[in-house]
Amino acid sequence: MPQTGTTRIWRFGQCPAGNAFADAFTLETGPVPAPGDGEVLIRNEYISLDAGTRMWITPRSDGYQPPLPPGVPMPGLVLGRVVESRAAGFRAGDLVRGFGRWGDHSCVVPAMAALNVLDDTVADPRQHLGVLGMNGWTAYHGITETGRTRPGETVLVSAAAGATGLLAAQIARNMGCRVVGLAGGAGKCRMLVEDFGLDCAIDYKTEDVEQALTRIGGGIHVYFDNVGGPLLDAVLPNMAHYGRVAICGLVATYAAEGATPGPRRFDQVLMRRLSIAGLFSPDFAHRGPEYNALLQPWLRAGRITLPFDITTGLENLLTAYAKLFTGGNVGKVLVKLT
Amino acid sequence: MPQTGTTRIWRFGQCPAGNAFADAFTLETGPVPAPGDGEVLIRNEYISLDAGTRMWITPRSDGYQPPLPPGVPMPGLVLGRVVESRAAGFRAGDLVRGFGRWGDHSCVVPAMAALNVLDDTVADPRQHLGVLGMNGWTAYHGITETGRTRPGETVLVSAAAGATGLLAAQIARNMGCRVVGLAGGAGKCRMLVEDFGLDCAIDYKTEDVEQALTRIGGGIHVYFDNVGGPLLDAVLPNMAHYGRVAICGLVATYAAEGATPGPRRFDQVLMRRLSIAGLFSPDFAHRGPEYNALLQPWLRAGRITLPFDITTGLENLLTAYAKLFTGGNVGKVLVKLT
Repeated sequence: MPQTGTTRIWRFGQCPAGNAFADAFTLETGPVPAPGDGEVLIRNEYISLDAGTRMWITPRSDGYQPPLPPGVPMPGLVLGRVVESRAAGFRAGDLVRGFGRWGDHSCVVPAMAALNVLDDTVADPRQHLGVLGMNGWTAYHGITETGRTRPGETVLVSAAAGATGLLAAQIARNMGCRVVGLAGGAGKCRMLVEDFGLDCAIDYKTEDVEQALTRIGGGIHVYFDNVGGPLLDAVLPNMAHYGRVAICGLVATYAAEGATPGPRRFDQVLMRRLSIAGLFSPDFAHRGPEYNALLQPWLRAGRITLPFDITTGLENLLTAYAKLFTGGNVGKVLVKLT
Repeated sequence: MPQTGTTRIWRFGQCPAGNAFADAFTLETGPVPAPGDGEVLIRNEYISLDAGTRMWITPRSDGYQPPLPPGVPMPGLVLGRVVESRAAGFRAGDLVRGFGRWGDHSCVVPAMAALNVLDDTVADPRQHLGVLGMNGWTAYHGITETGRTRPGETVLVSAAAGATGLLAAQIARNMGCRVVGLAGGAGKCRMLVEDFGLDCAIDYKTEDVEQALTRIGGGIHVYFDNVGGPLLDAVLPNMAHYGRVAICGLVATYAAEGATPGPRRFDQVLMRRLSIAGLFSPDFAHRGPEYNALLQPWLRAGRITLPFDITTGLENLLTAYAKLFTGGNVGKVLVKLT
């Protein structure tokens, strides 16, 4: 059945300075695309906003990938339903997740979009963009593989009230670790301890983090870091010997177009025989089913969850996106399409 | 048989500024010590000088260990012969290696000095302080375990004309890797290629290292780093994806009493999913016999060697020591006692 009507899309224009995202994108209206042979047309229900995408619009040649060319529709992870499929394995009505577009619809080639048909029985399907999706897998991989975390160890998580951080903290807690969170503001810190069972939380906005961390007996065995920057400086001299640092994100430096200062206490890598390693979700996305085999029972049993920070309306997307870089969110930032 | 006569020892006085080692040590003469129960008296034949010991005389609380207290005889790795033993397992005349003193003699408790009776049939016994000793083990461990080097990979080594670097480069070469050395001066670079079979060498004193490294196709899989500092900045953006950096030393920063700038291109850890890890020889010294099972046949077959930079006379030790921090040496710096 050919599609009729109009659809909207956020088109990338130029790299923004800092968080001035309104200078970078324009919302355009056009006809709903007709899927070509091998394509799937999706009505987006939720758009996942992720800090890592900031790199796609930063003019540097040494990021994950070159910046997007001006003029392209902005790509992003979406959750939605198939409207029309001209690709094998997808049928109208299927609940799907994949790399689509910041728009009302996504028209994709499944293999290029990492498109999956999802379990439609999950109580809150948004968790396919949370516990059971890229954030959950990144948290699981970073804690278990990059961080080589063992039960009983002390795990520190930065941006602990953010989507990946909150999941990493809960996974470590479920493994029997002592878990300390770094977050901005007393409200977030209280939530981490009272609602998510962390052992303690440090408000980096008001506390001297390096000093506060010295009170953790035995040092930090694993630091799951989403931030980099001055917090990493505060953590390195508080790591336990043979500790592991999983660099999941460096959000403190994503907007920088040139080099940023390195960790001042890098010498502790040698003195304490630390390991520091980066992780990047596309590298292990193929292991999602393996990770969900653990995460889904935990989700059902109430042993892990992820709250959502929902903004309604595609037209309000940029306001939601900015939250990722200002600490304005708790949990997963999603745009709900109406 | 009680010892008679006098012996000399370098006593540590105060932490030096930079390489002003004459301000830090005094050469004292006293009676030869008589070994107590459980002790071994050694006549030192060679004293091993090692850059890592610079940390022992730097006033900082977050190094490998606290700085030495003023007034102690300077410890160091020595090769010598037992003069008198009052400890089980050691006999007069045994060739031994262990942590003794910068002096004519060392009087030690074997277990505390990691004292070993050595294979007296090795053609050049000085290799017990080279290929078959701490430098060899560190090079082997750093290349194979920390660096997880595989045959055919590209391995870059800094301070490649120094003791550990030269051994790391040869081990990687013997594994079938492409090996690139960083060294200071055309003479050292020529030696690395012509005498030690490296694929190429870059003179960091005259070349733009970051630029030169871009000419290595495929990037660097393993960086065996003895130096840190600006060379690490030049290397990180030239690493291959999933590359490993083995931090063996940070000699560029050892004399610093406060924090030194971190690697400016630290973000590449995330962008290229690098692993960076420190290694420290006492952690794996117990594996020396295992490593020597490979290194000794290579040494016999002429597939690995280490040249020595010999200074004769205990009284000239400080001049030899300074070479480690000024790039003045090729290979292993030893003081030969007369």
